[in-house]
Amino acid sequence: MPVQTIQWDDDRFLLRLIDQNAIPHQVSFAECTTAQEVAQAISEMTVRGAPAIGVTAAYGIVLGARGGMSIRDAHSLLLATRPTAVNLRWALERMVSIGNDPAALLEEAKAIHDEDRRLCDAISASAQELIPSGATIMTVCNTGALATAGIGTAYGAILRAHKMGRVREVLACETRPRMQGLRLTAFELASDSIPFRIIPDGAAASAMRNFSVDLVIAGADRIAANGDTANKIGTFNLAVLAHHFGIPFYIAAPSSTVDPRTTNGSEIPIEERSSEEILRVGNGWVAPETTPVWNPAFDVTPAELISGIITELGVHRAPYSFK
Amino acid sequence: MPVQTIQWDDDRFLLRLIDQNAIPHQVSFAECTTAQEVAQAISEMTVRGAPAIGVTAAYGIVLGARGGMSIRDAHSLLLATRPTAVNLRWALERMVSIGNDPAALLEEAKAIHDEDRRLCDAISASAQELIPSGATIMTVCNTGALATAGIGTAYGAILRAHKMGRVREVLACETRPRMQGLRLTAFELASDSIPFRIIPDGAAASAMRNFSVDLVIAGADRIAANGDTANKIGTFNLAVLAHHFGIPFYIAAPSSTVDPRTTNGSEIPIEERSSEEILRVGNGWVAPETTPVWNPAFDVTPAELISGIITELGVHRAPYSFK
Repeated sequence: MPVQTIQWDDDRFLLRLIDQNAIPHQVSFAECTTAQEVAQAISEMTVRGAPAIGVTAAYGIVLGARGGMSIRDAHSLLLATRPTAVNLRWALERMVSIGNDPAALLEEAKAIHDEDRRLCDAISASAQELIPSGATIMTVCNTGALATAGIGTAYGAILRAHKMGRVREVLACETRPRMQGLRLTAFELASDSIPFRIIPDGAAASAMRNFSVDLVIAGADRIAANGDTANKIGTFNLAVLAHHFGIPFYIAAPSSTVDPRTTNGSEIPIEERSSEEILRVGNGWVAPETTPVWNPAFDVTPAELISGIITELGVHRAPYSFK
Repeated sequence: MPVQTIQWDDDRFLLRLIDQNAIPHQVSFAECTTAQEVAQAISEMTVRGAPAIGVTAAYGIVLGARGGMSIRDAHSLLLATRPTAVNLRWALERMVSIGNDPAALLEEAKAIHDEDRRLCDAISASAQELIPSGATIMTVCNTGALATAGIGTAYGAILRAHKMGRVREVLACETRPRMQGLRLTAFELASDSIPFRIIPDGAAASAMRNFSVDLVIAGADRIAANGDTANKIGTFNLAVLAHHFGIPFYIAAPSSTVDPRTTNGSEIPIEERSSEEILRVGNGWVAPETTPVWNPAFDVTPAELISGIITELGVHRAPYSFK
C-alpha cells in the first residue's frame, strides 16, 4: 500500500496533505479547510507532482464551494497557483463542468482522485514492454506515490518492473534546486526496497557512460499536441544526453497531461520560482540573498528527443496522436 | 588585484590559505606549518583548483623538509591527497628534482607560485580570439583567483574579456555537490562586477536554448595526450549539450595540466568522494546519512566534444600535440 499523499476526511470535511517539504525528515500533514489554504499548499509545494496537484485542486473547489466562494472564483484562485502543469487546469475545468451542487462536486473530486490511482496502475502496465530484464534505469525528480494518488507515473513503471524482478538499479538524479530526487524519490525507493543510487544532476553523462543505463524515464507536467513535453528542470538535459548515448528516453504520464490546446512546446508557460530556492538549502543560505540566479521550475524536451510517451492508453510514438 | 588564495609568509615560515569551504560566508585563513597540515588542507578542499593545489603542494614539500621529513615521504603524503588533478604530481615532481636544500626548495616553490600567476595572464590572452563581442558565456565550477595563483584559467579568460567590454553575461552552473559555482564563482563575479546569473546544473540545456550562449569555457584537472579532459563533474554534460546546440566548448588550463603519460581519458583516475558531500549541505542533512549515492568528483570529456584547448601557448585544436 503506497503512502497516501492526498487524503480526504469526510467526517471533518477537510483535505489532509503530506507535507512534501518536510520529507524525508518527517512525515507530517497539512490540513486544508478552505480553497485559500489549498491554493497556498500548491504554491508552496506542500503538495507537488502534476497529477497530485490536479486532485488537490479538485478538492480545493469543493472546499471553496462549502465556504461560500463562487466556483468561478475558486477556479481562478486555484488555477493561478502554478502555470505549467496542465493537470491542474484539466481537473479544475472538470470540476467547473459539474455546476454548484456541493454533493456532486465532492463526488467528482473523489472520482478524479480514484481515477488517478487506476491511471497509475495502467501507466505502469503500459510501460513494462519497454523495460528489459536486469534494467538500469535513470530518472529525475519525483514521480511516485507522493506525486500522484497511486503508485506514480514514471516511478510506478519502475516499481512494477521491480516487483517483477526486472530492475537491477535505479539512478535517480537529485534534482536541484528542491531536491525532489534526493528527498522524495530516495525516500520512496528505500521504502520499496528498490536498489538505487542518487547522483548529482551534473553526473548524468558520466553515469550513462559508466553504468550501461538501459533507459531514462521521466514524468510530465504538460505534453503539447506534437509531443513536446514540459517536465522538471533537468529533464531536457537528460534527453539530450540519452540521445547522445543512444539510450531510449521515455515520458510517463496520464493522458490528462496532454494538452491539445498547446500546439508545441514553445507555447508552454514555464514557471520561474524564487531565487531563494537556489540560494537557501534547508535552513542555511549557501550564497548571499542578492546573488542573481535563473530558476525555471521546468524545461521543455522536444518530441524528437523522446523515444515514446507512456500513458494509460499504451506507448505512443511519433508522430503523436494520443488516441 | 585579485584575491591571494595562497600566501607564503617568510617571516613566520608558514603557508596561509584562504579557507575556500568558508566562502562566501567569510574570508578566513588556514595556516599550515607542516606537510601534514598542507595534505589535510588539500584533502578537505580548504584549497582546491588544480593550479592552486599544485602551488600549495610545492610549499608542502618546503614545510616537510623544514620539519625533518624526507622529500620522498613528503612527496608520497602530498601526492596521495587527490588522484585526478595532474598539476599536483607535476609540481611535486618538480620539487623532488631540486634535491634537499631548504633554500633551493623554497625558491622553487616560489617560482612555481609566480609562474602560475603569469600563466593565468597568458591563458587569458590566448583565449581572447575565441570570445566575440557581447558574449554570453557559460562556465562551471570555479576557475578564478581562488583556484589559481593569478586571475584564473577559464575565469581569467572571462575576466579579461570583461575588462575589454566584451562580456554581456556569464551563466555560471552552481556545480553540485560542493557548489563551487554558487559559492566561489558567484563571489568572484560579483567582486569583479561582471554581469552574471547562477543556474542549477540541470538548467544548462534550457539556458543554452533560451539565452544565445556564445561559448562554454571550463577549466581542467588533467588533460590526456589525445585531448580527453578530466574536469569537475558536470563538465561532460555541458560538452554534450554544447555539441547538441552547436555551441563551441573550450577548456582553459596551463600546459602543466597536460599529462603526456596519460594516453587517453580512460586512464585518468576519477576520485570518488564521500556521500556526505551530497547528503549534507551547510549544517543540514538533506537526506538520511545512509542514502546510497554516487559522487565522482570529476568526469572526462572526450576530445571530440572539445572545440579547442587554451593554454599559455595558444589555442590548441585536434589532433592535439600541445606544442
